[in-house]
Amino acid sequence: MTHPIPPGTRDVLPEEMRELREICEHMRGRFEDSGYGEIHTPALEYEEVLRRGEERAAGARYRTFDEQGDVLALRSDMTIPIARVVATRYRGVEPPMRFCYFARAWRAAERGVGEPREFLQGGLELIGVPGAEGDAEVVALTLSALDEVGLRRHRLGVGDGSLYRRLLGSLGVPTGAHRALLECLSRRDLVGLERGVAELGLGEPEHELLVRLPELRGGRDMLEQADGRAGGAVGGLLALHELLEERGVVDRVIFDLGLVRELGYYTGAVFEVYDPAVGFALGGGGRYDDLLGRFGRGLPACGLALDVQRVHLAQAAEEALR
Amino acid sequence: MTHPIPPGTRDVLPEEMRELREICEHMRGRFEDSGYGEIHTPALEYEEVLRRGEERAAGARYRTFDEQGDVLALRSDMTIPIARVVATRYRGVEPPMRFCYFARAWRAAERGVGEPREFLQGGLELIGVPGAEGDAEVVALTLSALDEVGLRRHRLGVGDGSLYRRLLGSLGVPTGAHRALLECLSRRDLVGLERGVAELGLGEPEHELLVRLPELRGGRDMLEQADGRAGGAVGGLLALHELLEERGVVDRVIFDLGLVRELGYYTGAVFEVYDPAVGFALGGGGRYDDLLGRFGRGLPACGLALDVQRVHLAQAAEEALR
Repeated sequence: MTHPIPPGTRDVLPEEMRELREICEHMRGRFEDSGYGEIHTPALEYEEVLRRGEERAAGARYRTFDEQGDVLALRSDMTIPIARVVATRYRGVEPPMRFCYFARAWRAAERGVGEPREFLQGGLELIGVPGAEGDAEVVALTLSALDEVGLRRHRLGVGDGSLYRRLLGSLGVPTGAHRALLECLSRRDLVGLERGVAELGLGEPEHELLVRLPELRGGRDMLEQADGRAGGAVGGLLALHELLEERGVVDRVIFDLGLVRELGYYTGAVFEVYDPAVGFALGGGGRYDDLLGRFGRGLPACGLALDVQRVHLAQAAEEALR
Repeated sequence: MTHPIPPGTRDVLPEEMRELREICEHMRGRFEDSGYGEIHTPALEYEEVLRRGEERAAGARYRTFDEQGDVLALRSDMTIPIARVVATRYRGVEPPMRFCYFARAWRAAERGVGEPREFLQGGLELIGVPGAEGDAEVVALTLSALDEVGLRRHRLGVGDGSLYRRLLGSLGVPTGAHRALLECLSRRDLVGLERGVAELGLGEPEHELLVRLPELRGGRDMLEQADGRAGGAVGGLLALHELLEERGVVDRVIFDLGLVRELGYYTGAVFEVYDPAVGFALGGGGRYDDLLGRFGRGLPACGLALDVQRVHLAQAAEEALR
């Protein structure tokens, strides 16, 4: 007789549990010292309420019914629930507001067996600090929390989730063609992207810009060159670069003009956290200036979530390399 | 525009979150110092697997489907998942085994609005130590963990979940009549119990025994008298009393012959934790010697879970009385 658990879920035994808890405690300590208060929200919410935050993601969630027949869904992240809390429980509170969380989230496996369905996420949300200033705080605090955890090789990729869309608009590409191109980009399918751009029948310089820009990665030099070619569209990232330099963390940051995260609610900078010791992202996030408005409280916001399990794997992989 | 959350669930804001976390840390410290290792299991399990542990409770759970159409259920406690883990991941490990957890569990509200549906439970499971010896360890450690949390008035009720059933059997009451009587008892409906016993048409002494026994509460004197009247049926609780006296915690324990917990898997001692500063139980548990066998590993076991939220309320109520 076997007693299986659903694929993509895990039993965590005491030794590993202790290590995961230590990671959370280190991160939480750093977050709280920086004024981020921990929040918990219910695992089950009304699907209708979650959908106000993000229409697209709602379909992938585990759904169930309550006694009244209302549809409940397991949260798939903490950003939408915290946006809801800001709009309700903090309705009269002046921004900025700073929150962190250490909580599980659930996603239906879409790409097959082995993909996790239950995640332990540790993350932070900075509400009410716009643009590069807010982004820099979130990036620097994430890097510092991972220092605290004991990582030494971690890096943070920064892109601009709205850059390519704005570029398509400024080049007069019809809106109907945007979606397919943005989807290629979010899959990092640069071959498909080039094919799609070719079909637009643009002139040579515009074609080159749309095909080459997403390949650009680097620091200030790359950003300045790209900004010249893209008519000032990279100015926001240049400002962020400067603030990260002031905070002394810019050497850990890679600016990546091809980085676009999938989630529908990002409006500006997007982040992905890496460690060269492992082959997967440790987490990610970005700026979501429209999300809170959907709950009736229009405030700019920026956040980032780390997958604690993956941070743990990176910790072990780094130690093995030492 | 309002953004409700399901009744029986809560948003926990930073100040309360810090206090709940402190409670968990104090309890966990005491549990770990006593050799109890923390375990996490997935929130969603196959309903079929959970049902192996407890047929009855499975119906009340939140259910959903995975991509293969299998029924998944949100766990309603941690005892059944830990029994599963012991039977699988610890298959070859010699008992005793000691585990603790700090995890959320979900129950569909049955008795109306206001009843919580999401709980944060902190608990422990002692596997492979039979009878009074195991019970005493669990009781003493629970009391000590609550000391550590700062409670001063907490008490622990001890009953025997099998006493009344054994008594009915030894008095020759037909099995078909047991269930209704046990249900009265578990609801503490002593009027209904008396009516049900009257219908059995027993002699006066047997009638008196069945009606009066569940009213008995106290310490060693009560237990000795009851043991005499019930033909030695209280011997197990007397042994537990002695061990709790040795551990110096017996003055915090109330033996209560009417205490029967609802859950189907208890086979011996049952526990309920109280604080006179609040009007509700802080948690409970008991001995479940048959449960592990249902997962193919027949070991005696005993456990107890505290509702962390309720412990927090008791803490505040005690402070208000000081």
